[in-house]
Amino acid sequence: MRVLVIYDISDNDVRAKLAEDLKRLGLSRIQRSAFMGTISPSVLKDLKRVCGMRAKGHDDVIHIVQLCDYDWRRVVVIGKPWSEGLEGDVVVV
Amino acid sequence: MRVLVIYDISDNDVRAKLAEDLKRLGLSRIQRSAFMGTISPSVLKDLKRVCGMRAKGHDDVIHIVQLCDYDWRRVVVIGKPWSEGLEGDVVVV
Repeated sequence: MRVLVIYDISDNDVRAKLAEDLKRLGLSRIQRSAFMGTISPSVLKDLKRVCGMRAKGHDDVIHIVQLCDYDWRRVVVIGKPWSEGLEGDVVVV
Repeated sequence: MRVLVIYDISDNDVRAKLAEDLKRLGLSRIQRSAFMGTISPSVLKDLKRVCGMRAKGHDDVIHIVQLCDYDWRRVVVIGKPWSEGLEGDVVVV
């Protein structure tokens, strides 16, 4: 299944840890605070559990958006998509 | 149609203007840099045009995600969803 995860986490360390979690679960960064990817139903369970662990701050919020193939294909990207090379240059934490 | 707009805009002023645009187009903020809402096909055209105007920075990127009803209903929210009250307290610009 395809998922998009977007997050608003106040604490820098927690935000960095969540980003590591999302990479470990097989997702790819598409924005500073957004990841997308294809995962199995069992990984989706892990994803929800991990997000629940990380979103502990007062104003923290994470949205997990499951996308059908049709919605996935019609995502519009405007501007410069995040790339691994760029990721190395930008201070995320 | 249902849309989710997420953005990564470096310039504070441009980011604030984009947020105003998205509100004007009828979307509601769900995170610091994410809006959702139901719009017409003609507004979707305006939305793409506006996003194209705002994403001018070197690393700026905006994703417009159209969601079918099924995907819309199964969005998982973890933590505290953004509210209008909260929006007044948080410095977005």
